[in-house]
Amino acid sequence: MDGFTGRLTDQIRKDSPLVHCMTNYVTANDCANVLLACGASPIMADDEREVREITSLCDALVLNLGTPSEKKLNAMLLAGKKAKEMGIPVIFDPVGAGASSFRRSGVKKLLEEVRFSVIKGNVSEIKALVSGFGAEKGVDVSNQDKLDETNQESLLQLAKILWERTGSVIVMTGAKDLVVSGKNAWMVKNGHSMMGRITGSGCMLSALMGAYASVAKGEPEKAALAALAAEGVCGQKAGQKAEMRQEGIGSFRVYFMDEISRMSGAELEKEKNIIRLR
Amino acid sequence: MDGFTGRLTDQIRKDSPLVHCMTNYVTANDCANVLLACGASPIMADDEREVREITSLCDALVLNLGTPSEKKLNAMLLAGKKAKEMGIPVIFDPVGAGASSFRRSGVKKLLEEVRFSVIKGNVSEIKALVSGFGAEKGVDVSNQDKLDETNQESLLQLAKILWERTGSVIVMTGAKDLVVSGKNAWMVKNGHSMMGRITGSGCMLSALMGAYASVAKGEPEKAALAALAAEGVCGQKAGQKAEMRQEGIGSFRVYFMDEISRMSGAELEKEKNIIRLR
Amino acid sequence: MDGFTGRLTDQIRKDSPLVHCMTNYVTANDCANVLLACGASPIMADDEREVREITSLCDALVLNLGTPSEKKLNAMLLAGKKAKEMGIPVIFDPVGAGASSFRRSGVKKLLEEVRFSVIKGNVSEIKALVSGFGAEKGVDVSNQDKLDETNQESLLQLAKILWERTGSVIVMTGAKDLVVSGKNAWMVKNGHSMMGRITGSGCMLSALMGAYASVAKGEPEKAALAALAAEGVCGQKAGQKAEMRQEGIGSFRVYFMDEISRMSGAELEKEKNIIRLR
Repeated sequence: MDGFTGRLTDQIRKDSPLVHCMTNYVTANDCANVLLACGASPIMADDEREVREITSLCDALVLNLGTPSEKKLNAMLLAGKKAKEMGIPVIFDPVGAGASSFRRSGVKKLLEEVRFSVIKGNVSEIKALVSGFGAEKGVDVSNQDKLDETNQESLLQLAKILWERTGSVIVMTGAKDLVVSGKNAWMVKNGHSMMGRITGSGCMLSALMGAYASVAKGEPEKAALAALAAEGVCGQKAGQKAEMRQEGIGSFRVYFMDEISRMSGAELEKEKNIIRLR
Repeated sequence: MDGFTGRLTDQIRKDSPLVHCMTNYVTANDCANVLLACGASPIMADDEREVREITSLCDALVLNLGTPSEKKLNAMLLAGKKAKEMGIPVIFDPVGAGASSFRRSGVKKLLEEVRFSVIKGNVSEIKALVSGFGAEKGVDVSNQDKLDETNQESLLQLAKILWERTGSVIVMTGAKDLVVSGKNAWMVKNGHSMMGRITGSGCMLSALMGAYASVAKGEPEKAALAALAAEGVCGQKAGQKAEMRQEGIGSFRVYFMDEISRMSGAELEKEKNIIRLR
Repeated sequence: MDGFTGRLTDQIRKDSPLVHCMTNYVTANDCANVLLACGASPIMADDEREVREITSLCDALVLNLGTPSEKKLNAMLLAGKKAKEMGIPVIFDPVGAGASSFRRSGVKKLLEEVRFSVIKGNVSEIKALVSGFGAEKGVDVSNQDKLDETNQESLLQLAKILWERTGSVIVMTGAKDLVVSGKNAWMVKNGHSMMGRITGSGCMLSALMGAYASVAKGEPEKAALAALAAEGVCGQKAGQKAEMRQEGIGSFRVYFMDEISRMSGAELEKEKNIIRLR
């Protein structure tokens, strides 16, 4: 592959794509700030009366399943269909997908009616999407669903199944992140353990994927990989700084946003750790 | 009492209890982060269609009355009843309880139908619960409702009345915090004036109480005291750091989250300042 | 003019006015914190059942059009009418006013039924209010709508038209900020480019205007100018600090809140850069 992580990173700062985030109220502020930090422009709306019009102004759409309501799910369907008509990328972040039958049925409808460029979830969420049921521990991954050496092959298989069903690039997040698209499979090894100790790290990642996908015309796989590497590299730098200074997650969050806002394409190219598995 | 503040603090990090926070959109992010910082795991949901299922996955439930709506109040009733069935602790944070007849009637229904382990409010809020009416200044305490030497006895009486009516441990927050449960009464003297100058300090406290209560099986009084001491000690450390560096509430908030995320049980035991009044 | 920016700043810390913010869930936390930082007290509510009562407790009302819903718009109308009855100042922040027909019709109703002391928007938003239609790029200003030397006169004309239609002080924000009220026109030159790179800078400004207007009895023009100068001066200081330390927008946000929480009236008087244009 070419130096696409750097190229896309710089392109976002140049184009300042407008990303429509339909997301939860817990981390909406983090998502807006991470988009501004990477050079994109956020807009957030979730009323059925306006989401089609708002989406029509945008370069990408991100649907995040956190704190769902029936109204918001309906609005997501409308926005998702509009995005399909327009041909702009749509990212799906199925937060807590298996945690309730309400979320499972919402996921089902969204998968039926919207065409996703990228679906990003932790192991439990991806499992829930595949199996139609889950036993998640909240929005975090179930203990038995942690990604490690022993289950990597079976997880790749799982992602492959979801890819076959949806045609979407599948991103499975964990200590290391897997990306599956057709015959390709990748692992991104950037990241830091503190990322899992703040809320919004997953939501910010899907927001970033919206920004990257909007400039990676027709290459959602590269968008997903670049966004993973960007969040991971910035997480590493922020985590090292916070640990060196014996600080905690408050400072870590601040440093992470600093890093995203200052990261150049060249720097990302140097630090990215993306490994081809297949 | 044994070294319960330290023991419970360490237990949370060990068990990583899942805490369902039904809270306002103003401080939801702070609540999620403080739960992660102390070692617990947050989940937030407020749609009637899923709150029972979400609660059924959890180790504690926190109901926070900020930015209420009819739908959310109904969802809180459903979640609260589910929690009662399951026997998990429920914390009530009656934000601005006396500020409108809508909140007063919501409070009334919740007190009738849900069994709370702990009710935590400032003087105005506790007064509103007791009297069925209030004259609050927003969500902050009315000036005439400040807790000081002169009115401590009458406030303890007030808390006692609410305890008698509800069977819940009553926490009354202020410059110093009172805890009343049956014949017992305690004062927690940890804390820092900057805590009152950020939004979410009260909401984060009730979220922490959810985490502590989930590991303090059947001892909600200890949970309340430990959470008060934990927030107070971390507030003190953060406040001292911000003052020493001549910074303001932006830095204070960051340091507070740092302290919560780094606090050990041993440290809390050393710094806690809990005084038995009765 | 007298030293009104300093006088009002100190008056807020003395009176601690209660400001009802009906705002979006993306930046509600920032708005609450900035109000606390400047010495005011925030309250947030948006249910039709309680907004009149909540408003009746308050010294100012701020209506922010971000993440609108039909219910919230109706609640804003109720609160706005209550504020009119009471004679307290109402600030309008028409976030993304031209971005959808839903927002345009909401704006129309609000302008018909509520009497605003101050209307604050970027060029696109003010244009949308005047023209009844817009071509905004999300909630940020369209490129062709940037405020610079070449179009200052036409923008002052635009603001004048809106003033004539509404009787409200009109604030048009950009790299420099314009304030138009009757025959008067002002430019505020404080500010820093990093302000535009965080979410919530505009929302925090309208929240601050609520606090300033509540203490500037009958002088909304002075309130608007003082709030602009206060946010601008604090933005400058925060931006210089973040740049000097080679940090990004994470640290900038923290420093900005620090500055607001520490700013004295005397300091603001010294640093303010307000120029009379007419």
